[in-house]
Amino acid sequence: MNFIEGGVCAAQGFRAAGIHVGVKTHASWKKDVALIVSDTDCAAAAVFTRNVVKAAPIHVDLAHLAGGHARAIIANSGNANACAPQGEENAERMCAAAAAAVGCRPEEVLVSSTGVIGQTLNVQVIEEGVPALYGQLARSAAGSDAAAHAIMTTDTVKKEAAVETVIGGKTVRIGGIAKGSGMIHPNMGTMLCFLTTDCAISPAMIKSALLETVQVSFNRISVDGDTSTNDSCIVLANGLAGNPEITEKNGDYAAFAEALKHLCTALAKKMAADGEGAKHLITCTVTGAKDEEQAETIAKSVISSTLTKAAVFGADANWGRVLCAMGYSGAEFDPQRVDVSFASAAGEVAVCAAGRGLSFDEEQAKAVLTEHDVEIRIAMGEGGAGCTCWGCDITYDYIKINGDYRT
Amino acid sequence: MNFIEGGVCAAQGFRAAGIHVGVKTHASWKKDVALIVSDTDCAAAAVFTRNVVKAAPIHVDLAHLAGGHARAIIANSGNANACAPQGEENAERMCAAAAAAVGCRPEEVLVSSTGVIGQTLNVQVIEEGVPALYGQLARSAAGSDAAAHAIMTTDTVKKEAAVETVIGGKTVRIGGIAKGSGMIHPNMGTMLCFLTTDCAISPAMIKSALLETVQVSFNRISVDGDTSTNDSCIVLANGLAGNPEITEKNGDYAAFAEALKHLCTALAKKMAADGEGAKHLITCTVTGAKDEEQAETIAKSVISSTLTKAAVFGADANWGRVLCAMGYSGAEFDPQRVDVSFASAAGEVAVCAAGRGLSFDEEQAKAVLTEHDVEIRIAMGEGGAGCTCWGCDITYDYIKINGDYRT
Repeated sequence: MNFIEGGVCAAQGFRAAGIHVGVKTHASWKKDVALIVSDTDCAAAAVFTRNVVKAAPIHVDLAHLAGGHARAIIANSGNANACAPQGEENAERMCAAAAAAVGCRPEEVLVSSTGVIGQTLNVQVIEEGVPALYGQLARSAAGSDAAAHAIMTTDTVKKEAAVETVIGGKTVRIGGIAKGSGMIHPNMGTMLCFLTTDCAISPAMIKSALLETVQVSFNRISVDGDTSTNDSCIVLANGLAGNPEITEKNGDYAAFAEALKHLCTALAKKMAADGEGAKHLITCTVTGAKDEEQAETIAKSVISSTLTKAAVFGADANWGRVLCAMGYSGAEFDPQRVDVSFASAAGEVAVCAAGRGLSFDEEQAKAVLTEHDVEIRIAMGEGGAGCTCWGCDITYDYIKINGDYRT
Repeated sequence: MNFIEGGVCAAQGFRAAGIHVGVKTHASWKKDVALIVSDTDCAAAAVFTRNVVKAAPIHVDLAHLAGGHARAIIANSGNANACAPQGEENAERMCAAAAAAVGCRPEEVLVSSTGVIGQTLNVQVIEEGVPALYGQLARSAAGSDAAAHAIMTTDTVKKEAAVETVIGGKTVRIGGIAKGSGMIHPNMGTMLCFLTTDCAISPAMIKSALLETVQVSFNRISVDGDTSTNDSCIVLANGLAGNPEITEKNGDYAAFAEALKHLCTALAKKMAADGEGAKHLITCTVTGAKDEEQAETIAKSVISSTLTKAAVFGADANWGRVLCAMGYSGAEFDPQRVDVSFASAAGEVAVCAAGRGLSFDEEQAKAVLTEHDVEIRIAMGEGGAGCTCWGCDITYDYIKINGDYRT
């Protein structure tokens, strides 16, 4: 399995585009509508936010996905179309506009939105822009790049990745674009992720692979603990790779799921590293746990701890906050068995052994924590299970970005 | 029932003091050890952190409270005595030193610590300082003031309150000092609260009243979602008011519990308003809920939402974040019935009705949110229950304080 170029256009038979139509009124140079189209019908699946308050596009997508098939995805940034007047009507109008251009039924189009909540979506500018958007569709990396930019809100970099593997003797590609930061703990900017693949796989199996994947990738990152109304991860599989269709959980399924996990983990880490205002990617690796659930509960709690995030921002080896976050995670464990160290490209510093503080070189610890990528390593001493989660530090810029997001 | 002066010395038969002995090495002018002593034996009860990682003083207190009685409380700031070498031994040494000065058994002394985790407590300077501390004990408001200052860490103001009521024909007083910010979601500085009363009440009843009270006061505030290793709320009742001892849940018990709740709600609000770096006290009032549990789950989620806190910091009427936080709270509800408004001394602005955004005057909303005390009012439209929770905004100073707390 290799990482390759091309993002959401890496797989055969997919085209993408992104342009500015005017949903983002304050930044007229920024792209705000993206379109992804497959040449042929796709098996389709999606995972949506667990928030009780769901944006209108999610309700529309749930209906459109009933049969497990789709042809295209249209998405806008600048307005979440959540808690907004005419929400579902406007989401349906986006699908209809895209369908008219693509030449398919509106039910074959999926739709996503991200941006401010509670304001009426200016669907007219989207409808007027769709012909131009369709005209820009490209089968190249440039098409994926434009689409990736068009779904950005407070993101500072586009998130794009693609992988290539061999399944059933055929080269299969999976690519994706994403924005925001996670399915359980995304920032309000919302996590959106659109995945495309030329793998031949049934709707039931693509859904299963997506659920497995989201659990160990996007659900293991956190920026600020706020779960958005719009979080969506959608995958389209058009089968053009020509592999024997995956219709059960066999070896081909495992190979596909593994490739999908690699891809989504890469995208998830990009999201965590680009958390609003973040200066550090924080990786928390728990080993020696009783089971994976315990490891995951603890790792998630540590990367979600505001105080731990602030300590990493300050390059302060305040490991007490790590133990504290483990302690309130809800997981049962014996604090007296816990070892903790901080690690990065600058080395590793052990700070706690068997639940008690070690004396360590503060200067060395500072050097370790000053690196961009910082790892918190926790050894539980209880068993053989483990889990890795990703997050970011909390900074002045986070407050600045979120203190005045709407205006 | 009236609020009165005197804090932890308001009730008959209590003396308090606070001095600097040298636990806080970086700030030699700051008091760091407090002592509270009752003239006579007290019924005693306490509530401690739910964190799996509990500081050493909590283990010691649990043992000392086995019989439901105590005479004194000794507490230090500057070191949490959590995950630290010789933790329980040092906590016991603090009790022994206080007991020697007071003239009671070490088991009659309760102990608390707050400050940095994982470093050995300098118990020797405390032992050496206890005679001077004991010599400073005062029965006046000045004694309570000194003790309140001696338990502060990143607190910017002392937290102190007292109430007076009539129970069984006698004037009963309850007073308290506190620091930090909450039992479920305190900041790492830890919540400590010491309460004293001259009410005659049995150990079982004082414990019951304390549990009821903590649930609706300290457990309804949040600063940053991090639950400390040291959170403790301790109450001593010496019976000197001369009321008939409360030994069952009768009218006198109800009167006492009500007074205790008033006192602790006042202290809890002081904590929330003094959250690290906070510029606003945020009150979230939920009405029209199906039941109190639903109301509390939703109100807590809103005041804990980092994004809502950042919006209040920016005086940005971003009510979508309020609905979003309600939605991921875990409570089931119908978003289409929800009304939201922002209120303060500057007025009230309705921003959402029946789950949809209202057009409102942005300037007026800004004026409302610029006040120090800001209220988020949520009407669920589902029933007759309600709940109020308190929190604070998140600011640049929060990051500054917590980015470099240890050093």
